[in-house]
Amino acid sequence: MCRFLAYRGSDMFMSDLITQSEQSLIRQSYKARERAEPLNGDGFGVGWYAPEIDAIPCVFTSITPAWSNRNLHRLAGKIRSCCFFAHVRAASRGLLVSEVNCHPFQYGQFLWMHNGSIGEFGKIKRRMRESLNDETYNILQGTTDSEHCFAVFLNELLPHLDDYCVQTLLDAMLATLKHLNTWAQDAGISDASHCNFAITDGQNIVVTRYVSDPTQEPPTLYISSGERFESHNGEYRMITSNSHPKAVIVASEPLTEERSDWSLVPKNHVVVVTPELHVRISAIES
Amino acid sequence: MCRFLAYRGSDMFMSDLITQSEQSLIRQSYKARERAEPLNGDGFGVGWYAPEIDAIPCVFTSITPAWSNRNLHRLAGKIRSCCFFAHVRAASRGLLVSEVNCHPFQYGQFLWMHNGSIGEFGKIKRRMRESLNDETYNILQGTTDSEHCFAVFLNELLPHLDDYCVQTLLDAMLATLKHLNTWAQDAGISDASHCNFAITDGQNIVVTRYVSDPTQEPPTLYISSGERFESHNGEYRMITSNSHPKAVIVASEPLTEERSDWSLVPKNHVVVVTPELHVRISAIES
Amino acid sequence: MCRFLAYRGSDMFMSDLITQSEQSLIRQSYKARERAEPLNGDGFGVGWYAPEIDAIPCVFTSITPAWSNRNLHRLAGKIRSCCFFAHVRAASRGLLVSEVNCHPFQYGQFLWMHNGSIGEFGKIKRRMRESLNDETYNILQGTTDSEHCFAVFLNELLPHLDDYCVQTLLDAMLATLKHLNTWAQDAGISDASHCNFAITDGQNIVVTRYVSDPTQEPPTLYISSGERFESHNGEYRMITSNSHPKAVIVASEPLTEERSDWSLVPKNHVVVVTPELHVRISAIES
Amino acid sequence: MCRFLAYRGSDMFMSDLITQSEQSLIRQSYKARERAEPLNGDGFGVGWYAPEIDAIPCVFTSITPAWSNRNLHRLAGKIRSCCFFAHVRAASRGLLVSEVNCHPFQYGQFLWMHNGSIGEFGKIKRRMRESLNDETYNILQGTTDSEHCFAVFLNELLPHLDDYCVQTLLDAMLATLKHLNTWAQDAGISDASHCNFAITDGQNIVVTRYVSDPTQEPPTLYISSGERFESHNGEYRMITSNSHPKAVIVASEPLTEERSDWSLVPKNHVVVVTPELHVRISAIES
Repeated sequence: MCRFLAYRGSDMFMSDLITQSEQSLIRQSYKARERAEPLNGDGFGVGWYAPEIDAIPCVFTSITPAWSNRNLHRLAGKIRSCCFFAHVRAASRGLLVSEVNCHPFQYGQFLWMHNGSIGEFGKIKRRMRESLNDETYNILQGTTDSEHCFAVFLNELLPHLDDYCVQTLLDAMLATLKHLNTWAQDAGISDASHCNFAITDGQNIVVTRYVSDPTQEPPTLYISSGERFESHNGEYRMITSNSHPKAVIVASEPLTEERSDWSLVPKNHVVVVTPELHVRISAIES
Repeated sequence: MCRFLAYRGSDMFMSDLITQSEQSLIRQSYKARERAEPLNGDGFGVGWYAPEIDAIPCVFTSITPAWSNRNLHRLAGKIRSCCFFAHVRAASRGLLVSEVNCHPFQYGQFLWMHNGSIGEFGKIKRRMRESLNDETYNILQGTTDSEHCFAVFLNELLPHLDDYCVQTLLDAMLATLKHLNTWAQDAGISDASHCNFAITDGQNIVVTRYVSDPTQEPPTLYISSGERFESHNGEYRMITSNSHPKAVIVASEPLTEERSDWSLVPKNHVVVVTPELHVRISAIES
Repeated sequence: MCRFLAYRGSDMFMSDLITQSEQSLIRQSYKARERAEPLNGDGFGVGWYAPEIDAIPCVFTSITPAWSNRNLHRLAGKIRSCCFFAHVRAASRGLLVSEVNCHPFQYGQFLWMHNGSIGEFGKIKRRMRESLNDETYNILQGTTDSEHCFAVFLNELLPHLDDYCVQTLLDAMLATLKHLNTWAQDAGISDASHCNFAITDGQNIVVTRYVSDPTQEPPTLYISSGERFESHNGEYRMITSNSHPKAVIVASEPLTEERSDWSLVPKNHVVVVTPELHVRISAIES
Repeated sequence: MCRFLAYRGSDMFMSDLITQSEQSLIRQSYKARERAEPLNGDGFGVGWYAPEIDAIPCVFTSITPAWSNRNLHRLAGKIRSCCFFAHVRAASRGLLVSEVNCHPFQYGQFLWMHNGSIGEFGKIKRRMRESLNDETYNILQGTTDSEHCFAVFLNELLPHLDDYCVQTLLDAMLATLKHLNTWAQDAGISDASHCNFAITDGQNIVVTRYVSDPTQEPPTLYISSGERFESHNGEYRMITSNSHPKAVIVASEPLTEERSDWSLVPKNHVVVVTPELHVRISAIES
């Protein structure tokens, strides 16, 4: 299993979520609390937006473990952003550790991450590729189930960019899940697919917590929102907002000791975060 | 353009061909003589056979330049083999430097290398994949034209392993070239494909020097054979054999100062080296 | 804490100890049993001897985690040796993950590994360097306490190569520990040094299990010896020898489920393994 | 020989100097004009200041060639800075390609680069280290002559930070050159030292073009200053300033086709660029 986080809100240093706190994504990557298999040493990636420059996110990935990557530590402490993704990878058995397989995947203004795995991916990989039009087909660079899911998502999304809003993102996400279910059924696949997907355009964020077999549990997914996420006396907390939140974090595990800062997203639900930081959680119909 | 070499004969240290001499593959990788674009710093790979252990070759690849790779220098000086491939890569524009894209590519007992490029590869990539049966489809790990050509080759070869001999290798190679020409024609591709391909099963070696457009020149390809390849007073030479040769080298450029040691393979010809070190050069019918 | 193993005996594939078994060094590197801090993802190294070629060992190191390194998996399955070292690293806080800091360190025919750390190393680093003669001074490439200890060891050893035997190795090892204690005392250092050092010349192996503060425990160190180390029905065991052993393993943790195969080396003792596979364990006088 | 550039002026994308133009630092790294040995594939580094955040520069280094590093291409296109350094490395013979050996070296708010090499460095390395106080001694992480020169420089500079101005930087630089000459003389070294050093504190930049043997030539060093450095119809030029310049570039080779944009710094001179972009060139007394 991988780990990820998505941030949207006022400008914030990436280091506050990724490298600094005791519960930061990197610390989690080598000392897990909620996972039986703690290790996320098979590469990492961060992607962030600098809207004052342009709409295309900047991505930094590496195949070395995040915890010892000096470039990541230096960059995270210098880069402030209103929207960023971070991901630490535990390579699925048999999948390669390669820069092209590091999340987040980027295309145009979009970033994509995945925590989980597609059941018996080899049996539908070819069908997934064949479903793609030429544009999305040629986007594929690697071999992971995660990137192939991104291609399926883009194949749904790109024809609708003319009339684009957050609902367009959401529709493409739900259509992707539907396709995956259909193809798995057609291929007689019995293994479940674990599909915690995250997509952003730099403005909106959509994240699913989904497992295709309702008798199983998908990976965890938590939300925290408030005035700001900051450190007091060395301990990070989400500071409560009196009015409208100015910071929203969606993460595979809580990033603070204080669990009351975090709510668990229910199974087979999708989270939508808008530019105004409205958070909407709704059930995914199967 | 990349550079490569293939060796077959008595056991020989890889270092003698790869790292030691003034004209060794690694020296060529940063100081070219016959090439306008000298640099081969986008990864490398070596593959060698240890028949006393098993038939599967060992492969060592890296995305860092060969000339500064300490592991390569140390391994090449310790490993003796009767059959090995070595390749230094100059990434085609837009193709990724990634370990999965490093030559030689390996499958079962086979090793494959390519020097050249498939013209307008993007236009036939999808058709190449669709031509594959499920086994060869799932072998693909990367994005290069070279690896896709290897998959097409395996797709031809693998059904014929029951009745296998050197001719089987040769037939699959020629069928691969034919397919590439047909698909390029169907796609209306005008750019030429440069197809210096090398394949070995650890016993036989087949290498082509081929360009799809007869008005152009394929990359160079040279052969040297003799008693042994060795150094006298710091200068490497192929020692002439009075009887049957005991060492055959096929390489993209001469590996000694003395050009009389080397013969240029004619354009659109294929070289076959057998376990008995018989060398046969024949024209490729288009 | 790092992990390491040393093997001496009949020719054996490195993969049997490093990559294959459930308790292999690589599996241990991400799933610990005896350690609170399980992770060894900060690079690795292997060093092995091929006496049929020469006396200088071949070394392969990398800064990526051992568990996902394809080159290591391929090499370990092809290389058989009568003497090899393997090490997986967990970088000490503040020390760099860099190839020059990967164990085993090599000089001439010698290989060196360290599991543990020198207490308050920064306070005696300069004195350690100043104690070196020019030859050993210039051997240093990196910044680790481990490599500096190797330099101190070589500084003791190299003047005695004329009259060399296994006792020479042992004397230099004990002198190294003495120096470290003296310098720590002079510098008023209170932190203990954990000094599980391993040295080999390709024939003899000397390994210490030592902590400078007798109220503390050094890292664990185990020995197993027998006819051969092999797999039956998927489970590795050391096969008992009726006569003289033909395989000796010294490792930071047991490499089989069956603990009766392994004996714990007592605290502050040193293990000597000779070319005849005599194993001698003796107390280190402080 | 390495290549480097230093920029000071209005905020500018790093990509305009490093990755975009036909004469950019990266293009130079694989296609040289003024150098017999063109290749700079042994790692690279960039360092930049974000004064709106703090005074400490951010550094990004890698041991892979700059030309194929996707992270560098992405970062350079998103980061604008008023002061940055960039360096592409050709490792000196025998020196390691390792991240700790990549320029620019950073300490506190300072960045340091070197183009050239210290003659017979091994003969004065130990004396250089012994000249350092404990603070600067412990800064050293690697093995290069360049980083050792930086340590000598810091050893001169750090005691004078209380009364700090651009002259302090310049004095420390000149003292460093003097020390190097003295030590070389004492060690009976006959090889010349080539010392194109660059230092910045994020405000001021000091760059030398110096060779210790007056009968030789130091590496080239050029200056360009003007209104801004920008592209017209795909060709980069330094736009002339009617009044005071707003952009100053100091680089080992011209970064445009148009040589009239560039002036060669005379041999054994030092360039000082102030925050007001005053450029002063003065002779270095030997």
